[in-house]
Amino acid sequence: MSTAQYQDFIPPSRLLLGPGPSMVHPRVLHALSLPLLGHLDPVFLGLMDEIQALLRATFQTQNELTIALSGTGSAGMEAVIANLIEPGDRAIVGVNGIFGSRLATMVERHGGTVLPIEVPWGTTIPLELLRDRLSHSAPVKAVVLVHAETSTGARQPLEDAGSLCRDYDALLIVDAVTSLGGVPVEVDAWGIDACYSGTQKCLSCPPGLAPLTLSSRAVHSLQERTTPCRSWYFDFSLIAEYWADRTRAYHHTAPISMLYGLREALRLVHEEGLSARIARHQLNSDALLAGLHKLDLLPLPAAGHRLPMLNCVTLPDRIDEALVRSQLLNNYGIEIGGGLGPLRGRVWRIGLMGESCREAHVLTLLNALEEIFTCHGWLTHPGRAVQAAEETYTGSQRSARRSA
Amino acid sequence: MSTAQYQDFIPPSRLLLGPGPSMVHPRVLHALSLPLLGHLDPVFLGLMDEIQALLRATFQTQNELTIALSGTGSAGMEAVIANLIEPGDRAIVGVNGIFGSRLATMVERHGGTVLPIEVPWGTTIPLELLRDRLSHSAPVKAVVLVHAETSTGARQPLEDAGSLCRDYDALLIVDAVTSLGGVPVEVDAWGIDACYSGTQKCLSCPPGLAPLTLSSRAVHSLQERTTPCRSWYFDFSLIAEYWADRTRAYHHTAPISMLYGLREALRLVHEEGLSARIARHQLNSDALLAGLHKLDLLPLPAAGHRLPMLNCVTLPDRIDEALVRSQLLNNYGIEIGGGLGPLRGRVWRIGLMGESCREAHVLTLLNALEEIFTCHGWLTHPGRAVQAAEETYTGSQRSARRSA
Repeated sequence: MSTAQYQDFIPPSRLLLGPGPSMVHPRVLHALSLPLLGHLDPVFLGLMDEIQALLRATFQTQNELTIALSGTGSAGMEAVIANLIEPGDRAIVGVNGIFGSRLATMVERHGGTVLPIEVPWGTTIPLELLRDRLSHSAPVKAVVLVHAETSTGARQPLEDAGSLCRDYDALLIVDAVTSLGGVPVEVDAWGIDACYSGTQKCLSCPPGLAPLTLSSRAVHSLQERTTPCRSWYFDFSLIAEYWADRTRAYHHTAPISMLYGLREALRLVHEEGLSARIARHQLNSDALLAGLHKLDLLPLPAAGHRLPMLNCVTLPDRIDEALVRSQLLNNYGIEIGGGLGPLRGRVWRIGLMGESCREAHVLTLLNALEEIFTCHGWLTHPGRAVQAAEETYTGSQRSARRSA
Repeated sequence: MSTAQYQDFIPPSRLLLGPGPSMVHPRVLHALSLPLLGHLDPVFLGLMDEIQALLRATFQTQNELTIALSGTGSAGMEAVIANLIEPGDRAIVGVNGIFGSRLATMVERHGGTVLPIEVPWGTTIPLELLRDRLSHSAPVKAVVLVHAETSTGARQPLEDAGSLCRDYDALLIVDAVTSLGGVPVEVDAWGIDACYSGTQKCLSCPPGLAPLTLSSRAVHSLQERTTPCRSWYFDFSLIAEYWADRTRAYHHTAPISMLYGLREALRLVHEEGLSARIARHQLNSDALLAGLHKLDLLPLPAAGHRLPMLNCVTLPDRIDEALVRSQLLNNYGIEIGGGLGPLRGRVWRIGLMGESCREAHVLTLLNALEEIFTCHGWLTHPGRAVQAAEETYTGSQRSARRSA
């Protein structure tokens, strides 16, 4: 190999409005570039403590076992299943998209038996169906629900799921990869026993870590295992010994730079305030959907079940979706997501996550779509989509003034 | 929580001479701070292709399945075991330190039976012992050896291990977490079937990725599995579909920024040239050991079995090792490693890995040790350690001139 073939890498400018990764704040990028400390350096251990405190605030929990796992969101998913499901355990898994299916696969790989509740993609699991299943089946170890189904944009109601699971002595496991930091994820108030997320969605940190938290019930269940966790790397009983202030036992070398980045990303969440951040996500989604409506791009999930950070809209037949996505990327530098599985070619998934979730980005995207649609003759009255979004922002300012 | 409690994070200056992470080149730190691309962006996929080519050159292999796994070196370890060991498989595992023990644990967790070859810490597994075990036991699926035992500084000879394993139709699995990029790791020439490493050692990238490579024999063994890999996140048959140019099927969101960093770190390896880099590691280790000898700090492994990037030296009784390490860190900003397991309190592990492996660092450390030892009255003739190291460098220049 000649040296000449490897040039400086200069990424092209991108506006990331897909299902993640989202845009990353310059302060987080800067944090990633700081010189390294050792993984047992007292200063680094102090930074880990701060990350734990900031994660507890973001998950709205007092759980001691609240950490960032050294892997992506999917690693968080597998780690929670690997630790809480033992061979022979039964688990009810809500399946309404790719990530519910993936969870079911993981339960099986870790020796569990899956009792799926399958509902159409784009809908959510009705709690009545869950109650019915709990009351008519042999005891289950856990109920697994996806809060934010990134493949469909569906938002699972969870407020009453925890108490229902407690009635049947089941753990409640929740996938909050896409939701954390963009809509409320109230781990303690909702009685969630295990909740995991990813860094590259509404926390706007690069991908590579999985924030997660376990209730004392879940920790008790770890202690009651009769077989070791099938994964050593994901074994919470070992990982917790490294994160816990009283032990700090080496398990694996922590991903130092990524943890620098996560701390800064969480500090930005903290500075903005969780409720302001959640309101920002809702407002920008409202504006985007108002604009998309003018382009005949309508949300897949029903009202009240839509994720503001992952807007999944169905496509009229006349739209050549792959062509538009490629024009957005190549001519405008804008990334949006296509459909997965049965939704391939039928939907777009437009992410407004964390730093990507800004009025300017909503208007930029709508403008670009109007231009492309007009070029292809799919739109005869351009300007209405942008106008509808702008009216949403104006209306929101008016109502904010009124309530002030 | 008040905002005031989270300040800007400014890491103290550290010279990292422990068992990893090592110092990271400013070009790699800069790469980490570049804006993100999506994990399916064509430009990012091109960067992944370059990483694969650079990794093949570093592993000295033509293996198609050569990738960077989304987890630390320990994740690479578990992934290789999880994929190549099925329930019921038997594996011979060389156990001569922490990482051999960890491998044995992992084989068991993934359903395999371990046939350990245990030898004292600091020594290596004699191939005659391996041949004896292979010829006297029922067929084994794999032989697992640690090339660089980071807990003891022992360097396992591997040149003839591959052909021996082939004689018995066993796969050869090698842990090269600490060795890759610092001593030869000749995957194809030595007949290694699966080899994994970490980024934070001689590649001098932050921790968080596990470079790894699988031979066609190992890939064939994946295809012959009768049960799915127990880990979904680590399932090579799925991960390969994302890295392969012909498929690019989404598995999990790649750790974009870390992969930027790894590409730049590998480009630095490529620019220096593997043989120059290996010679640099050997020379600096020789100089360090010459200096440490004057302080009565002698290598644990026998000559010919020492890792140049991980210098494990035993401590005379008069040395208060924890005190010295804390003075090095707090007064000089130098991190070195203590002993693990049975070697706790009895050895130091001094890393000279990648960017940490420089003449200036060797001299800085020896100077600091001489000062501290003199202060405590453990040394009456300071200066000899630094002098011995300098003579090694001078001698090396002379012999280089002679051979020029």
